[in-house]
Amino acid sequence: MRLIRFQHPESGRPTTGVDCGDGTALVLHGSALDPLEPIGDPVPIDGCRLLAPVTPVCIMGIGMNYRQHALEQGKQPPTRPMMFMKNPAAACGPHDDIVIAPVCAEREQVDYECELAVIIGRPARDVAQDQALSYVLGYTAANDVSARWWQKEAGGGQFCRGKSFDTFCPMGPCLVTPDEVPDPQALRLTTTLNGEVMQDSNTGDMIFNVAELIAFLSQGTTLMPGTVILTGTPSGVGFARTPPVWLKDGDVVECQVEGIGAVCNRVMGDSAP
Amino acid sequence: MRLIRFQHPESGRPTTGVDCGDGTALVLHGSALDPLEPIGDPVPIDGCRLLAPVTPVCIMGIGMNYRQHALEQGKQPPTRPMMFMKNPAAACGPHDDIVIAPVCAEREQVDYECELAVIIGRPARDVAQDQALSYVLGYTAANDVSARWWQKEAGGGQFCRGKSFDTFCPMGPCLVTPDEVPDPQALRLTTTLNGEVMQDSNTGDMIFNVAELIAFLSQGTTLMPGTVILTGTPSGVGFARTPPVWLKDGDVVECQVEGIGAVCNRVMGDSAP
Repeated sequence: MRLIRFQHPESGRPTTGVDCGDGTALVLHGSALDPLEPIGDPVPIDGCRLLAPVTPVCIMGIGMNYRQHALEQGKQPPTRPMMFMKNPAAACGPHDDIVIAPVCAEREQVDYECELAVIIGRPARDVAQDQALSYVLGYTAANDVSARWWQKEAGGGQFCRGKSFDTFCPMGPCLVTPDEVPDPQALRLTTTLNGEVMQDSNTGDMIFNVAELIAFLSQGTTLMPGTVILTGTPSGVGFARTPPVWLKDGDVVECQVEGIGAVCNRVMGDSAP
Repeated sequence: MRLIRFQHPESGRPTTGVDCGDGTALVLHGSALDPLEPIGDPVPIDGCRLLAPVTPVCIMGIGMNYRQHALEQGKQPPTRPMMFMKNPAAACGPHDDIVIAPVCAEREQVDYECELAVIIGRPARDVAQDQALSYVLGYTAANDVSARWWQKEAGGGQFCRGKSFDTFCPMGPCLVTPDEVPDPQALRLTTTLNGEVMQDSNTGDMIFNVAELIAFLSQGTTLMPGTVILTGTPSGVGFARTPPVWLKDGDVVECQVEGIGAVCNRVMGDSAP
């Protein structure tokens, strides 16, 4: 099943529904985190603005979780997952603009990171690895947009500031339930920038797989329903290229996850004060 | 006004109310983030379990924000606020137990951090410093409990993992509205451990004051209502002592903020798997 969240064509309200695949959606009561309870007839969704499929209660990101991405930074693969967080308000829709705020515009630094995102469906704490996937509500695609100067230099070593700017977490286009993702470790990930392939890898290259991440992060720690885990990005990010590639006004960046779909976003400078 | 959240004596439900100061509270509709709308007569609260005064939508912490605390670590004061995050699910009530999970119990590492916590009341983005305090819903006291090995060594340099264990953010006892806190930079902070004073400082020693923090954090970034900013801890933390002092089973740690009150928590080992 593919769940989407969208602006309702009549009320304009954020609405969750089952994507019927024919240009309509079956509207659900509440959010993707609530029991599935359809309301009324399917509504047309063509032309509706898609939203992030859930409102995250917490966004956890994993640093350096792909072997090739560790290598491109000249680093040893980590011995444990490295976790940081993004402001939940950074989440935006799969086709929304990525807006470079003035505070990020003084130097070139904004980068893409194509990621498989895992959405937790029920409270998870001290979860065994072989049970971990049963806590997954679904999967989606995400771009863990990152302002590198803020992330690495101006943040005092902590990634959170440079990862938390508004619109820095496009998610979507849908939440795909686990029954349609038989193996989350066999999904191709692709990023294109203005049509040129920048990342092309597979979740099979992850250092810590999805089950290991959930088990690790839930140690002594409750992952509440609606927690989004960004499982890390593969090689090919902009900052590690020679010369580096940075997102700039007018770019179009698309991050695709096999079997799920793509977030595709235009990059906008921001002239607001 | 002093707002509290508590388990209702009859229904047991989390309930927000105005502390009448006479052992009763005037129950409010919704949470402290909703418009104040009293429901019915005051209810007795003596003996009720107090909860964190709000359910945080995001917990932002500030590292090294007191001059003396930077000195005790042998570090230069930072030139910009260093921001990290805690899992919102780490929040707990002002008198709940701090539970040391097995994953933190393999070595001594759990530490206290007395802090003034700021609760944002309306969406704040690109806020000017001289307007920043108008976004504050209220202030509370918090203990930014930290597992130092996870924070500094096992977290790959990112603080989030070691700051996010369940019960690692006692908050309370109440949310005090800004009209009762005329100057948030003139509040004494005190921590006692089993009755012995461990931290005794004043928010006047902050490197970046509350208004500066809100202005900084809101640059290009929306602070949603219910965002909690932990404004940093003063000197006297356990890890910087000679010899170091670590929280252990049976300890009682109290973090007090002048004009607000104290979170006072017993420390419990955890025998759960």
